[in-house]
Amino acid sequence: MRVVIPFDATTPKSRLSTILDGDERASFAREMLRDVIESVTAADLSPTVVSTEPVDVDVPVTVDDRRLTPLINDVIAEGVPVAVVMADLANVTPAAVRRLVRADGDVVIAPGRGGGTNALVVRDEDFSVDYHGVSFRDHRTNAAAIGADLTVIDSFRLATDVDERSDLVEVLLHGTGDAADWLRAAGVRIEVDGDRPSVER
Amino acid sequence: MRVVIPFDATTPKSRLSTILDGDERASFAREMLRDVIESVTAADLSPTVVSTEPVDVDVPVTVDDRRLTPLINDVIAEGVPVAVVMADLANVTPAAVRRLVRADGDVVIAPGRGGGTNALVVRDEDFSVDYHGVSFRDHRTNAAAIGADLTVIDSFRLATDVDERSDLVEVLLHGTGDAADWLRAAGVRIEVDGDRPSVER
Repeated sequence: MRVVIPFDATTPKSRLSTILDGDERASFAREMLRDVIESVTAADLSPTVVSTEPVDVDVPVTVDDRRLTPLINDVIAEGVPVAVVMADLANVTPAAVRRLVRADGDVVIAPGRGGGTNALVVRDEDFSVDYHGVSFRDHRTNAAAIGADLTVIDSFRLATDVDERSDLVEVLLHGTGDAADWLRAAGVRIEVDGDRPSVER
Repeated sequence: MRVVIPFDATTPKSRLSTILDGDERASFAREMLRDVIESVTAADLSPTVVSTEPVDVDVPVTVDDRRLTPLINDVIAEGVPVAVVMADLANVTPAAVRRLVRADGDVVIAPGRGGGTNALVVRDEDFSVDYHGVSFRDHRTNAAAIGADLTVIDSFRLATDVDERSDLVEVLLHGTGDAADWLRAAGVRIEVDGDRPSVER
């Protein structure tokens, strides 16, 4: 199965600006991308990256600066089956990737927290994506509209995309890849005040 | 396997006070409890509830108003194997419960978002819990200290405990039980501003 990993190389992870500066956000985003590539590769798949700018990774890169929705709809039009895995799933593992690609269904979605679509397998060429808004809900509707069977993958690792400072708690606690190591080396750590963890540096 | 569901019947879900009043929070918490009981029962297990006050459910209830940590350590002392499932997992399904109880390991943990321990199976009587702070990390340490094999369950449904207003997004999107229906009937809904969903009423 083809696997596409879209990557924003231009202004990645702007919501982490309270804890990482611009260069650091760029570095951290690339570490997460490399972790995702490594997990996909370890699951015996050969991903390609579609990036807004050239990026130095060990797999083929296509540069395309369009928004995610038209870009992925073109990816689907190029042929199914295809998997689309977001580049900021710092906690992804080969096992989680395997659960995604081995699941039956014309459309397979691993939802992200907050209604996103963090990973997707499309086997029906009539399916189209819309990543704007609460994309999980829209994708469920789109699948039903074309009579496609939808399978939802129940994975905390795939549900954890890293956008907000609070998401870093999950990377520090559960991450085993280079992005987690990068964060720790940058002095980012969990502090506990009462029962609520926060991320400090 | 014994399954224990601890329940705070006294002041449940105080962090939802910006959207539900006290009586509503009590009702919603009981709906979530009943959903958890139903999923555990549908997975062919017979749970008991340990509640701070009497509560009207279809399974045995023990009233015990101690804090969670000494309470669950006594539950473990009464005999292993035992499973402990939190009462606010509104999105839990029978399939998720089965993954938990069928997993190998002296200690099996389904982590919650933010470092919690949302569900737990203990097969080693020397294991002890500490729910204060980042309990997942402490439980991992405790398991290692007694040489117990630890298995971590990768489930978004089990990771989603409902404490904060933003957690209601997940219930509205993915919930199939009475708690989700209760929320919708109360007029709680998702609004989208840009790409970020919020919960309004």
